[in-house]
Amino acid sequence: MARAHVEIELRWGDQDAYGHINNVAFARYLEEARVRLFWLGTAREQTGLEGYFRSDDPAGPKMLVAAQHIEFLRVLEYSEHPITIAMWIGKLGGSSIEVHYEVIDGSTTAENGEARVVARAITTVVIVNGETMQPQRLDSEGRKIAKQWSDDPLKLGR
Amino acid sequence: MARAHVEIELRWGDQDAYGHINNVAFARYLEEARVRLFWLGTAREQTGLEGYFRSDDPAGPKMLVAAQHIEFLRVLEYSEHPITIAMWIGKLGGSSIEVHYEVIDGSTTAENGEARVVARAITTVVIVNGETMQPQRLDSEGRKIAKQWSDDPLKLGR
Amino acid sequence: MARAHVEIELRWGDQDAYGHINNVAFARYLEEARVRLFWLGTAREQTGLEGYFRSDDPAGPKMLVAAQHIEFLRVLEYSEHPITIAMWIGKLGGSSIEVHYEVIDGSTTAENGEARVVARAITTVVIVNGETMQPQRLDSEGRKIAKQWSDDPLKLGR
Amino acid sequence: MARAHVEIELRWGDQDAYGHINNVAFARYLEEARVRLFWLGTAREQTGLEGYFRSDDPAGPKMLVAAQHIEFLRVLEYSEHPITIAMWIGKLGGSSIEVHYEVIDGSTTAENGEARVVARAITTVVIVNGETMQPQRLDSEGRKIAKQWSDDPLKLGR
Repeated sequence: MARAHVEIELRWGDQDAYGHINNVAFARYLEEARVRLFWLGTAREQTGLEGYFRSDDPAGPKMLVAAQHIEFLRVLEYSEHPITIAMWIGKLGGSSIEVHYEVIDGSTTAENGEARVVARAITTVVIVNGETMQPQRLDSEGRKIAKQWSDDPLKLGR
Repeated sequence: MARAHVEIELRWGDQDAYGHINNVAFARYLEEARVRLFWLGTAREQTGLEGYFRSDDPAGPKMLVAAQHIEFLRVLEYSEHPITIAMWIGKLGGSSIEVHYEVIDGSTTAENGEARVVARAITTVVIVNGETMQPQRLDSEGRKIAKQWSDDPLKLGR
Repeated sequence: MARAHVEIELRWGDQDAYGHINNVAFARYLEEARVRLFWLGTAREQTGLEGYFRSDDPAGPKMLVAAQHIEFLRVLEYSEHPITIAMWIGKLGGSSIEVHYEVIDGSTTAENGEARVVARAITTVVIVNGETMQPQRLDSEGRKIAKQWSDDPLKLGR
Repeated sequence: MARAHVEIELRWGDQDAYGHINNVAFARYLEEARVRLFWLGTAREQTGLEGYFRSDDPAGPKMLVAAQHIEFLRVLEYSEHPITIAMWIGKLGGSSIEVHYEVIDGSTTAENGEARVVARAITTVVIVNGETMQPQRLDSEGRKIAKQWSDDPLKLGR
């Protein structure tokens, strides 16, 4: 039971005409967080997940986004303070994974140490064979590592 | 009980490194669809919704995205054929609205007339006073128009 | 001596925190205009350029952007009126082409028929072999078609 | 005579369908670099420029992009290594400034210490009054600081 963390820089251009970080930018942040966790292996923690998912074999496993659900709790303003994204596996299926996230405003953390959650999200990703694009079961080694980075699932509204 | 429709051009730049339209672009399309329905009033149908929501008064109602849920059913490829987004109000709260969408691939429609749905989505928007940013109840005139553009709610997974 | 024209829809999300269409969006518009002219062949005019450049052969010619110069003459506001991009070949090298553009505000055209130019730009593209990525000379057939869509080069400031 | 430096994280989503960082993303990087230098004051060096340009007065000076010229020297690949942007004032006009940049690939620097320049660029920005949007001369204090961050102008092709 553990969560991984990545820090992502905001860009001024992530703002919309209202002068706030736009909801579409959050989808971009979640994508970047997944890439860093599962491919680059540059999360704050050494997870071992990237060893499994990042394959030099072009036919190796790819992740497709099957669904995404985001709840926006507070407005996020552009600043020099990167957001922190806490991520964990909230549900482990046969060939699918639910990645759960909390997005934490870096400026409130910098000001007073408060980990203010501005958004919560769940992405359902399907693991496919990179060549056939057919769903592919996670093998037992992959499941073992994935379980180490599991935690209680979020309950999003509705 | 009716649905409104907007057509949105794809951009080559909406593709990601996999060569498909990226999931983040879908969030952008949904935003554009809402803007056209509720502000510009350029949906295929004359809805009256824009008359209510588009106010010249800076303190007039604004829409904030509180949550968004997207299901991706099929891969969408870049082409010259705009997608069609069918939109309706799936749930009408006091100061919130659920906008439900089906995103239809324009290339299959062009080829054989099939309305192939590539994604389904729900956005929960909160109506706020543009000055105070406090939630604001939709008045009876607004509710009347909104009901005309209501339809059965989507049931997204989970 | 002729110019080709493409119309491109604006998106609300192309605006920045100042509430104007952001300069980065213009680079996206120019890219989309090139794709439509050289690949899709959906410019207003039947140019023949796409017949040459769009190849089903993966090793066929690709275009790489070597340089881009944009001058912003006026602020562009988001509206339902697509911009029109007038494009022509301002200079034809051995394996490179200069695409010259004028970006015309669709809202002023809609209001009073005025073709108000909001930006001018030049992109230097290099034609490369899609497999070796080495510069590749435009053959005589390609040069003949390209000359038909040539016009006087822009003179950008500095 | 000095140059300021900012480091900017790449995002996987900055790639295009060719699998390289797209030219449009470079325009976004340059914007972010200007914001950090002139507003946030988070360049590697303490420049004093942000003290002048970042005003709490809404009518304080704003920067508008009047022109931008980018030369792409090499392909940039997505990686965990941020790019470094070296920036300096290449020309100081009455109410305009030319910002000159070199964009340095962080992955080659990480590998072997080589500062491989992948792009060079010049942005002409006009300083305007935030309320009237009229060009505004840089005062003598501003000019003094700006001169400290000046260096030889780039000579871009054509």
